[in-house]
Amino acid sequence: MATFVCPGSFDPITNGHYDIILRALVHCDNLIVAVGDNKAKKSFFTLEEKIMLLNKVFMDYKSIKIESFTGLTEEFARSKNATALVRGLRALSDFEFEFQMALLNRKLNPNLETLFIMTNADYSYISSAAVRELLLNNGDITGMVPDCIKNDIISLCEEKRIGNR
Amino acid sequence: MATFVCPGSFDPITNGHYDIILRALVHCDNLIVAVGDNKAKKSFFTLEEKIMLLNKVFMDYKSIKIESFTGLTEEFARSKNATALVRGLRALSDFEFEFQMALLNRKLNPNLETLFIMTNADYSYISSAAVRELLLNNGDITGMVPDCIKNDIISLCEEKRIGNR
Amino acid sequence: MATFVCPGSFDPITNGHYDIILRALVHCDNLIVAVGDNKAKKSFFTLEEKIMLLNKVFMDYKSIKIESFTGLTEEFARSKNATALVRGLRALSDFEFEFQMALLNRKLNPNLETLFIMTNADYSYISSAAVRELLLNNGDITGMVPDCIKNDIISLCEEKRIGNR
Amino acid sequence: MATFVCPGSFDPITNGHYDIILRALVHCDNLIVAVGDNKAKKSFFTLEEKIMLLNKVFMDYKSIKIESFTGLTEEFARSKNATALVRGLRALSDFEFEFQMALLNRKLNPNLETLFIMTNADYSYISSAAVRELLLNNGDITGMVPDCIKNDIISLCEEKRIGNR
Amino acid sequence: MATFVCPGSFDPITNGHYDIILRALVHCDNLIVAVGDNKAKKSFFTLEEKIMLLNKVFMDYKSIKIESFTGLTEEFARSKNATALVRGLRALSDFEFEFQMALLNRKLNPNLETLFIMTNADYSYISSAAVRELLLNNGDITGMVPDCIKNDIISLCEEKRIGNR
Amino acid sequence: MATFVCPGSFDPITNGHYDIILRALVHCDNLIVAVGDNKAKKSFFTLEEKIMLLNKVFMDYKSIKIESFTGLTEEFARSKNATALVRGLRALSDFEFEFQMALLNRKLNPNLETLFIMTNADYSYISSAAVRELLLNNGDITGMVPDCIKNDIISLCEEKRIGNR
Repeated sequence: MATFVCPGSFDPITNGHYDIILRALVHCDNLIVAVGDNKAKKSFFTLEEKIMLLNKVFMDYKSIKIESFTGLTEEFARSKNATALVRGLRALSDFEFEFQMALLNRKLNPNLETLFIMTNADYSYISSAAVRELLLNNGDITGMVPDCIKNDIISLCEEKRIGNR
Repeated sequence: MATFVCPGSFDPITNGHYDIILRALVHCDNLIVAVGDNKAKKSFFTLEEKIMLLNKVFMDYKSIKIESFTGLTEEFARSKNATALVRGLRALSDFEFEFQMALLNRKLNPNLETLFIMTNADYSYISSAAVRELLLNNGDITGMVPDCIKNDIISLCEEKRIGNR
Repeated sequence: MATFVCPGSFDPITNGHYDIILRALVHCDNLIVAVGDNKAKKSFFTLEEKIMLLNKVFMDYKSIKIESFTGLTEEFARSKNATALVRGLRALSDFEFEFQMALLNRKLNPNLETLFIMTNADYSYISSAAVRELLLNNGDITGMVPDCIKNDIISLCEEKRIGNR
Repeated sequence: MATFVCPGSFDPITNGHYDIILRALVHCDNLIVAVGDNKAKKSFFTLEEKIMLLNKVFMDYKSIKIESFTGLTEEFARSKNATALVRGLRALSDFEFEFQMALLNRKLNPNLETLFIMTNADYSYISSAAVRELLLNNGDITGMVPDCIKNDIISLCEEKRIGNR
Repeated sequence: MATFVCPGSFDPITNGHYDIILRALVHCDNLIVAVGDNKAKKSFFTLEEKIMLLNKVFMDYKSIKIESFTGLTEEFARSKNATALVRGLRALSDFEFEFQMALLNRKLNPNLETLFIMTNADYSYISSAAVRELLLNNGDITGMVPDCIKNDIISLCEEKRIGNR
Repeated sequence: MATFVCPGSFDPITNGHYDIILRALVHCDNLIVAVGDNKAKKSFFTLEEKIMLLNKVFMDYKSIKIESFTGLTEEFARSKNATALVRGLRALSDFEFEFQMALLNRKLNPNLETLFIMTNADYSYISSAAVRELLLNNGDITGMVPDCIKNDIISLCEEKRIGNR
């Protein structure tokens, strides 16, 4: 029973994340999409919104669970008896940060491997930050997030704007 | 039954390779160490020597097999029904080449994933090329290759030198 | 009639920007220096100050216009019928961000090319951030910004300091 | 009358090159695809074969000319009164080499600009080297080279093989 | 009498810093560990705490002095008649920032060299940020900071937490 | 008595090397310019020519010695009781190779430090390879090599050409 943990902020989930998660699922029995709940880092979508969106995207996958966590990723993974963390590498700029995190996590827990998967080239220009920038400027996000949540994301963003007035 | 293929030239196998292979083994049922037999690329050790060294290093691991292959890595992996290629990332300079190879292999075979593992920091200065350079200059390779084959490697190198006279 | 748009925050314009803009001008009929007006990103100089400085620097160039814009760069460029965005590449660290922006902008508008020009090596250590750091510490900015606005920049900075008391 | 020169070895031309050349064409009046004829660097296809393939690919473009050159790129560009060299940037690993070449060429000729265009993400895994590797192993090159020359490339490669026996 | 300055924020000092400082000491007569006191950049430990920790770590080294400074590093180094700044390079991501700072500092003062030392591979995953993250989550920092101040760091952190309630 | 060793192939020495060597000299008592004599790596200039050129460039510096060496750099440095190797970092692409060499050399000899100096931005486009390329194509190398040996280099190159006919 191999359990992988795929940690991230998913603010919001993009097609890049979606692709990595489904590709990782092939190599394990269970996969936990772990949404970091970091009070110190302000996010655009609330934790509840992020989890609602993720649940909708992966509702047909019985072996994928959506959970949130606080504290160290390594401790969360340990509490789930995970055999590996899964991370997507999109570009060189991800590389060094991920390299240091992987080394640090192995120091904390030598049994916790970090497996990396290269992001599909088609999604290389996609990031949660780019999606948020487009949302704030009424740009088109088609193809950047899973189709089934595109309208939810746009509605949530619209509500935030009205709330900010 | 997940089969991973770990392709390389292993000229010779280093502790960096050794570490990656054993860490990958945790995540599959069988692992094939696949020694590329590329006539166009001159190697220091012969194919037979490389395979002999690998067999000695992994003799106690029933789920690891050593094989050689010619042609495309993707075709070899397909012929073995492998679910993933495994590659170690040692440094940024590996990254782009590996990124392009992973994308190319997925184009050739969308079902063949490439999983990356970050090399242990302790081994970051080790490469087969560095080992060969030390060998040719009577430098000390202790700690750079698995202990059980250190003397074999030194003997093989010595034989080559005598042969070259 | 080729129109290029050179977008940026120009906080303040440096000799690096100046060099790129004049070199780009050779390859188009009109060039718009487009100052992003992003309320979410605090700038050191006000939009009005940035535009005043840019107008002074390029006052002798009839084919260069200074404008400000809000929202997506791509939409501003489209509204001006621009054929290309122009960006200077100073260093590797610029590369990936620019790469993703260029891909994103082409997705939004396949007719909008991004042309890159390598910054002159003499200006490789110059950035708006370095200029601001020197200004705040009474360091010498000679040679880092166009000579004709050096004193304006120093005066504006002095006024801000008095205002902050 | 702006003339751009797009230099390269085109061994063979890929869809990555093809895309860059057509995108550059939008920004000039004439474009010369300049095939470097470097005796010191062995190529897979002969100069004549490369030029034949390029001519076939761009036969419908009156403003594109295919030429070969020896010696310095800068001197060839000067002899053609070119206003710019055009280069595609595919990945970070291209960046530094291109950066140094662009600086060197500007030192040799301050009027010769090098304009860079980011390669389409879809083509990021494509290189002439990857195409040659596939050709030598009977791999599928569909989508990696312009369709109109795919069979020519395969035939030329087959002839070389028979010749090598 | 060669004096080196090793500037940084040391928030807190890690074993990576410690290693670089002692290795640099071999090549000079005096070394000043210079703690930047930048009001604009919020730090986790106060200036007084950072200095107390540094003094404790280097108390047995007569040729090492701990000082704080405001303003430009170059001016501080000049006031101390320093012959060189010393910086550790941990990873590629440090490189470009350090490169630009070194060029800028040489422009400000051609007699002030910046000497770089590569961080020990064992410490490549250690950063002050990682230490702070572990502290805030009760993670184990053993081996990441000098042993003699490990408990001081944990106590200081605990006090801050109580203060924040 | 601090002795630095500056190893390289110097094929030929450029202004980039020249700048690094003189800047390193400030921080030691003696500096040995160590020309690697690697039979396996073909060089353009002979060992004798390289040494003649270096001797001419540094003839006025009593504390600089020119020597050649075979085998491991670390062993040569040890035989000279050197306290440090000095290397210039020109660009990111140098970084990783240098990083691995520095770690390897420290493993072989913990007392041998490698000190890095950033190449002057003005020389960032200069490399021995670029000089050789220009020489072979009658390009102008003024400003790329020390003035005092410019004509020697051109004459040596001319002799080689005649010899090759």
